[in-house]
Amino acid sequence: MDSIILAYIAGFLDGDGSIFFQIVPRPDYKQKFQIRTSIAFYQDTTNAKILEWFKEQIGSGYIRHRKTGISDYTIIESKEVKRLLKLLQPYVKLKKKHVELGLDILNKLENKKSNKDFLEICKLVDKFKDINYSKKRKITYETVSKSLPL
Amino acid sequence: MDSIILAYIAGFLDGDGSIFFQIVPRPDYKQKFQIRTSIAFYQDTTNAKILEWFKEQIGSGYIRHRKTGISDYTIIESKEVKRLLKLLQPYVKLKKKHVELGLDILNKLENKKSNKDFLEICKLVDKFKDINYSKKRKITYETVSKSLPL
Repeated sequence: MDSIILAYIAGFLDGDGSIFFQIVPRPDYKQKFQIRTSIAFYQDTTNAKILEWFKEQIGSGYIRHRKTGISDYTIIESKEVKRLLKLLQPYVKLKKKHVELGLDILNKLENKKSNKDFLEICKLVDKFKDINYSKKRKITYETVSKSLPL
Repeated sequence: MDSIILAYIAGFLDGDGSIFFQIVPRPDYKQKFQIRTSIAFYQDTTNAKILEWFKEQIGSGYIRHRKTGISDYTIIESKEVKRLLKLLQPYVKLKKKHVELGLDILNKLENKKSNKDFLEICKLVDKFKDINYSKKRKITYETVSKSLPL
């Protein structure tokens, strides 16, 4: 992708987008929890065309139109999140920490071999709570560590 | 300014900024009204550094930190607004109409010779009401036309 396009997308994401990583329960998974990754762009539904343009450029993810009049374009597939974070890394300013931390988590997820590795990753995911100023995060490293044998 | 920087600023502005032109009362002005122009960038005060970076790049305007926890960086001086709109024009996507209409108004303001010219400009300013989906605009072409002799 063209550097001008990437710089534009990075600016848009910094202005009103989000990068977040979360621990979600997955009773059918080996570790009972999964790391959910996402990059999201928001805009009034009246301006949703820009989200379609992002989707064309990026090539993955999906667009939702909410009843609140807000639409979002969200990418959740780990490989795609990683690809996009890498592409945007040189251009992002406000969310530099998010990108670095996200890539660190994704790399560690690919190489994870044990429950201990997974718990270390959960600790990194907890850091998103701080950089996103999120107060309502319920499932943390603590939660996972209580259910996972080492 | 570098095209990468301009593309980033354009993305940020499209994501969460505003371009608006307004008619405001100015009893001491010849036409009793003034066209107020502004380009504004918003961000949580915790992230206000990005606004300072914008100000460094752009070189004019001012930053305010509101009690609501939101900060803004706003450029209101017509010459500076015009310069920035021209610079951003090739990169902006969502606010393309705003930029075109804004530049049209600024050019016409520079060449205005009569009350009739000013009223024509007020008609253009009214168009911002539609493209900004603004419902609370009180002073319009109608208002000015009632007080201004042709």
